[in-house]
Amino acid sequence: MDTNTPAPGTVAVAEALAGQRIELPSWAFGNSGTRFKVFAQRGVPRTPHEKIADAAAVHRFTGVAPSVALHIPWDAVDDYAELAEFARDEGVSIGTINANVFQDDAYVLGSVCSPDPAVRRKAVDHLLQCVDIMDATGSRDLKLWFADGTNYPGQDSIRARQDRLAEALRETYDRLGPNQRVLLEYKLFEPAFYTTDVPDWGTAYAHCLELGERARVVVDTGHHAPGTNIEFIVAVLLRAGKLGGFDFNSRFYADDDLMVGAADPFQLFRIMVEVVHGGALAADSGVAFMLDQCHNIEPKIPGQIRSVMNVQEATAKALLVDREALAAAQAAGDVLGANGVLMDAYNTDVRPLVGSVREGMGLDPDPMGAYARSGYGERIVAERVGGEQAGWGA
Amino acid sequence: MDTNTPAPGTVAVAEALAGQRIELPSWAFGNSGTRFKVFAQRGVPRTPHEKIADAAAVHRFTGVAPSVALHIPWDAVDDYAELAEFARDEGVSIGTINANVFQDDAYVLGSVCSPDPAVRRKAVDHLLQCVDIMDATGSRDLKLWFADGTNYPGQDSIRARQDRLAEALRETYDRLGPNQRVLLEYKLFEPAFYTTDVPDWGTAYAHCLELGERARVVVDTGHHAPGTNIEFIVAVLLRAGKLGGFDFNSRFYADDDLMVGAADPFQLFRIMVEVVHGGALAADSGVAFMLDQCHNIEPKIPGQIRSVMNVQEATAKALLVDREALAAAQAAGDVLGANGVLMDAYNTDVRPLVGSVREGMGLDPDPMGAYARSGYGERIVAERVGGEQAGWGA
Amino acid sequence: MDTNTPAPGTVAVAEALAGQRIELPSWAFGNSGTRFKVFAQRGVPRTPHEKIADAAAVHRFTGVAPSVALHIPWDAVDDYAELAEFARDEGVSIGTINANVFQDDAYVLGSVCSPDPAVRRKAVDHLLQCVDIMDATGSRDLKLWFADGTNYPGQDSIRARQDRLAEALRETYDRLGPNQRVLLEYKLFEPAFYTTDVPDWGTAYAHCLELGERARVVVDTGHHAPGTNIEFIVAVLLRAGKLGGFDFNSRFYADDDLMVGAADPFQLFRIMVEVVHGGALAADSGVAFMLDQCHNIEPKIPGQIRSVMNVQEATAKALLVDREALAAAQAAGDVLGANGVLMDAYNTDVRPLVGSVREGMGLDPDPMGAYARSGYGERIVAERVGGEQAGWGA
Amino acid sequence: MDTNTPAPGTVAVAEALAGQRIELPSWAFGNSGTRFKVFAQRGVPRTPHEKIADAAAVHRFTGVAPSVALHIPWDAVDDYAELAEFARDEGVSIGTINANVFQDDAYVLGSVCSPDPAVRRKAVDHLLQCVDIMDATGSRDLKLWFADGTNYPGQDSIRARQDRLAEALRETYDRLGPNQRVLLEYKLFEPAFYTTDVPDWGTAYAHCLELGERARVVVDTGHHAPGTNIEFIVAVLLRAGKLGGFDFNSRFYADDDLMVGAADPFQLFRIMVEVVHGGALAADSGVAFMLDQCHNIEPKIPGQIRSVMNVQEATAKALLVDREALAAAQAAGDVLGANGVLMDAYNTDVRPLVGSVREGMGLDPDPMGAYARSGYGERIVAERVGGEQAGWGA
Repeated sequence: MDTNTPAPGTVAVAEALAGQRIELPSWAFGNSGTRFKVFAQRGVPRTPHEKIADAAAVHRFTGVAPSVALHIPWDAVDDYAELAEFARDEGVSIGTINANVFQDDAYVLGSVCSPDPAVRRKAVDHLLQCVDIMDATGSRDLKLWFADGTNYPGQDSIRARQDRLAEALRETYDRLGPNQRVLLEYKLFEPAFYTTDVPDWGTAYAHCLELGERARVVVDTGHHAPGTNIEFIVAVLLRAGKLGGFDFNSRFYADDDLMVGAADPFQLFRIMVEVVHGGALAADSGVAFMLDQCHNIEPKIPGQIRSVMNVQEATAKALLVDREALAAAQAAGDVLGANGVLMDAYNTDVRPLVGSVREGMGLDPDPMGAYARSGYGERIVAERVGGEQAGWGA
Repeated sequence: MDTNTPAPGTVAVAEALAGQRIELPSWAFGNSGTRFKVFAQRGVPRTPHEKIADAAAVHRFTGVAPSVALHIPWDAVDDYAELAEFARDEGVSIGTINANVFQDDAYVLGSVCSPDPAVRRKAVDHLLQCVDIMDATGSRDLKLWFADGTNYPGQDSIRARQDRLAEALRETYDRLGPNQRVLLEYKLFEPAFYTTDVPDWGTAYAHCLELGERARVVVDTGHHAPGTNIEFIVAVLLRAGKLGGFDFNSRFYADDDLMVGAADPFQLFRIMVEVVHGGALAADSGVAFMLDQCHNIEPKIPGQIRSVMNVQEATAKALLVDREALAAAQAAGDVLGANGVLMDAYNTDVRPLVGSVREGMGLDPDPMGAYARSGYGERIVAERVGGEQAGWGA
Repeated sequence: MDTNTPAPGTVAVAEALAGQRIELPSWAFGNSGTRFKVFAQRGVPRTPHEKIADAAAVHRFTGVAPSVALHIPWDAVDDYAELAEFARDEGVSIGTINANVFQDDAYVLGSVCSPDPAVRRKAVDHLLQCVDIMDATGSRDLKLWFADGTNYPGQDSIRARQDRLAEALRETYDRLGPNQRVLLEYKLFEPAFYTTDVPDWGTAYAHCLELGERARVVVDTGHHAPGTNIEFIVAVLLRAGKLGGFDFNSRFYADDDLMVGAADPFQLFRIMVEVVHGGALAADSGVAFMLDQCHNIEPKIPGQIRSVMNVQEATAKALLVDREALAAAQAAGDVLGANGVLMDAYNTDVRPLVGSVREGMGLDPDPMGAYARSGYGERIVAERVGGEQAGWGA
Repeated sequence: MDTNTPAPGTVAVAEALAGQRIELPSWAFGNSGTRFKVFAQRGVPRTPHEKIADAAAVHRFTGVAPSVALHIPWDAVDDYAELAEFARDEGVSIGTINANVFQDDAYVLGSVCSPDPAVRRKAVDHLLQCVDIMDATGSRDLKLWFADGTNYPGQDSIRARQDRLAEALRETYDRLGPNQRVLLEYKLFEPAFYTTDVPDWGTAYAHCLELGERARVVVDTGHHAPGTNIEFIVAVLLRAGKLGGFDFNSRFYADDDLMVGAADPFQLFRIMVEVVHGGALAADSGVAFMLDQCHNIEPKIPGQIRSVMNVQEATAKALLVDREALAAAQAAGDVLGANGVLMDAYNTDVRPLVGSVREGMGLDPDPMGAYARSGYGERIVAERVGGEQAGWGA
């Protein structure tokens, strides 16, 4: 493929790229780390408002990141309508609400799955309050990831915990408004080390089926066992109409939460191929594209910008796949030919194409450079003095 | 726990052990190996009848292995009613029918998921013929494991293959008699190395839900990604009423197909704990307990005997768990106490107990020794001269 | 095997068990957790002295845990000679010194491997100070685990970092006294997520070879890639005279740091078989047996007691292996026979034996019960009020 | 980066690419498969000569694959000098000799590590005969991969097997001529499922150190535990002067032996970055670049051509890394900057560059198309009728 000549359909590709929407996570702008150490960075936000301001900066340079996901209680404020207004003034909106039920001492043996009914009540109440917040912010999605699980065989009943989980999900689902959804996320392990109560897509899927139409599964790209074929799960969930969205990040080992596309860009491409071919890229598909990662050692705003760019580039390559040629080779059983069609798209350098899409949106084609030149990074270091930096450390 | 004193409830434990049923796989008696080499052993069966005779020998010494699973076409005969009669004469019955659709050149790109409709037709026809065989043998279960998948990204459409799979399963399911079931098995990888069409329990579960009541999931203990918590899957499938049975074996790395209990006896115990506590041990639970393993370097009949014993011992330990004490510790959030109750049972030496169960059944308490003394091994070596040994080599 | 009759050699087994030495880690008595949350427990030590007091309590009930490993700076005090004296008064001694170079903001890109020479100097100075502390406490071993590594491809030069590592190790090794050793520990990943500078035993071994006689490798049982055969590494290091010791703990997924023996007791047994057969159990073997784990949700002192018991029981089983029968079966190529000899020992209930060893030492045969009845746990909860609990949270 | 303008240094890059040498494996042209099935392909070679002819075809279209590795006894002939002459006439040479000691019934419990001294003698004799063959063919390297290991705990002594291995390696090494080398390959598992006698680079490295200067480690890219960082091993072995070469292939799960670069092209790039930066690309570096893979479902010659191209493209990207900018960013601790320099090279579409290198060598820039148009594939299908196809099936 000659990269100098626009492939047929490049206009459609450019339009699709311009219409892509990637949601940013507020916590990515705060300090983060491992159990060994959280390294503080200068200029880190101290309030939900400052996190939103940083997310808005990412949007100004990329043009495709117009919403911010909140985590409650990390982003708890007195007036959520005011926070939503602030976001609008910054040029973004408040997106998904994440309910955190893992950082209170009561949750030592779990939250909605705890053997203690009082703890379960407390946890479900928190979920319900999150729906209240959604009402105030206009958010569509309640994203639920439970740290629940056990560390030792015998510690608790796997089955009883499933029953408790189902009960909590039911009460929460029934509280949703008609345009609200629950997105259920699974994760193999961490922080629980023997059982996790929603460890795989199958468990999340089974619960979503029980709940109803507006319950869907979220795929976090760092939450699988080694060797798991993530794009297969994406394809199967899309076929079943049960894919709610992505938490993008990347990993070499466990839930490393590195920048999406940094560890295995070919995997990200293959995932986006399933998204594109499954019709899930469009804004009205009901599939949410969210970043969910942290920047332990690199600066956070450029880390987010780079991540948005990585998703864009993988999407561009996925859009460039010659689907007719691919289908023909597949139907003919031409293994090398079909693989070759896919690799042709992957091996294309799409940076010029994505750059021109940005220019078409009135943006600098080089978001990293433009951000560096903007002085925003220096300004927040100078201004954000005193107060307590946002973080999520244990 | 003092191992000299019978624990309260030992009689019930002994009864449960005496009533346990473990099915043997006919192919385990033939030669097997890896892609590198199949090492031939002397005395190996040359016909389905000789395989059944060997399985019957295992049953004579263990008392709990009264049925044999067949693989078609490996065990194809002209007259299945006669084969069933032969089995009855040997003191066993024909159990599950496994439909093999992976060793014909036509299946190079898959069987029921192949892009070639003629190949799919051929494969489904084979599945339907297997139901005919079930009618002749009186078998209840059709076990389906598909080697289908792809080796390279782009090679075929994940989603189209799911559609083809669903279609084949539907046609097969609709052919079943009212007392027949389909058991769908999943496997992470091998022989396909990029996608596998039924790679995990979630995919198998979703298809079984679509099919109906008499479709259930089979858990092969060697078919998971590293780190997968198998007993969790067992508990979840039992809760959903969708566990059809087990293919027991053990593994350190991939689908090693070693003797069950050889690699991680504690895992086997934890699985049996879920089985016992989930009420699935009883013969009428609809959960089938099958061995599915091979003996590449060790003698096959003793390998099967040892495997049956390993399952029995794990079951005995699971039955010895003090469930009241366990539930009390779990409810109290006593992590170490609950784990301690489980470990008390695991650390018990149940060999005397299982030996006495055998004696109660009129058997030698030491099946390995009794088999060695029986002369059966020497006899088959002497008798089975000439002909072609059964195997499944590529 | 009849568990009622003492096997031949039981006296020797009992003596070996009574002579076993297991070192406790001071940090296990402080609060610990994951990146998501450190759950505080009541009664947790607030000072190095209180940690030593708790370790001494474990020793009083088990009889085989007479030393405590320190971590510097977590256990930094003004007067180490006084701390050693305090330990002696409590009935224990100070063991291995662990040099922590990962919790200072300077170490964001590594310690001895950092690209910044000033940071490397700071880190090496800390290592040298730890040798000073060893001089004061009489400790033999300096244990080095480096959190160093990178998160992103390209972030730093793998090779340059190896050169820096070698240089730091050389300077530290040259500072050792004639009876002091350096133990180098490896770990696959965490907290670094792309490269780790000492990720496997091969890297640790290569550096130890370069350093000299008194540099040895430490095997932490939770620091390997999935599927790694740890007992193989133990056997190979023993053959090369380069095994320095163990950091015991257990894991299902990554570096879970659960109680040793809790996740895979059969693996622990296999490791102890290599230890026993390699002549490494004796106190003068130069192989140190250390616990290195945490108790995030269970009480810490009972967690340590249980862990010591688990190591004892695995050791007892390893000592019971009939080595003559094993060697004979191995030489004869009797796969099932040799495996059967090993499993005979593993399946033995050694709790009565270990209990009688304890009684021979004047201890209660049931350390968990005896500790619970002692009132120690209640006393520290009552007494340790105010102050800041020890922890290692990020 | 603008892909239209040659980067500074492109001439040097082109020269390096033109000088690259990739060795082909004779067995890749024969039939291959999994333990489940070997699917036969039409036109497959029936003799070592026909395999060499096919390898020569790959070289004619790629220009950088001028040698063929043999496996003995698969490629056993009466007259090796004649075979070498035949290869020369075809335009290629005979490269590495691989000694296969795993397909004789005697090797059921291992070859050089077998407990049976007669089997060990037989195996070592085979290794020595392979050196004789090297003398006849002028081959420099004897590549040793041992299938040796055990399937069950206790089956054999890990340590005794290491002693036997060391003895066999010593005898073989001492037989080498002054310009001959032994390359020792490691592999995590398969066909052995509990222990493997050379399971990791550390074990291979330790044995090579013992042997001497002309013993080096071979890295097969499919032979590692999940999560292993292969480029780290490459860098460490290069630093120690002990990297002998590569067996290239790719894998998603285990030793899948897929086309190199097909599963994780980014990993291949990272490996080649270490090669280039470690000075190992040059022909006189003593590092051999070999393909070692099979084509179970795709046609073999195009599969090899594609694989050679994949290595070339990864090499081209590695050569394009701006090393000055990279070093500067690394020294400055600029995590995102350093990663960005690496990704700039990876994201470049190097196909035009590699195509022009081919044109400079008088070749068609599109080897896949040129081969398809050549009629070679059709010719061998027509000519190779009758006889027995080469394979390596068990």
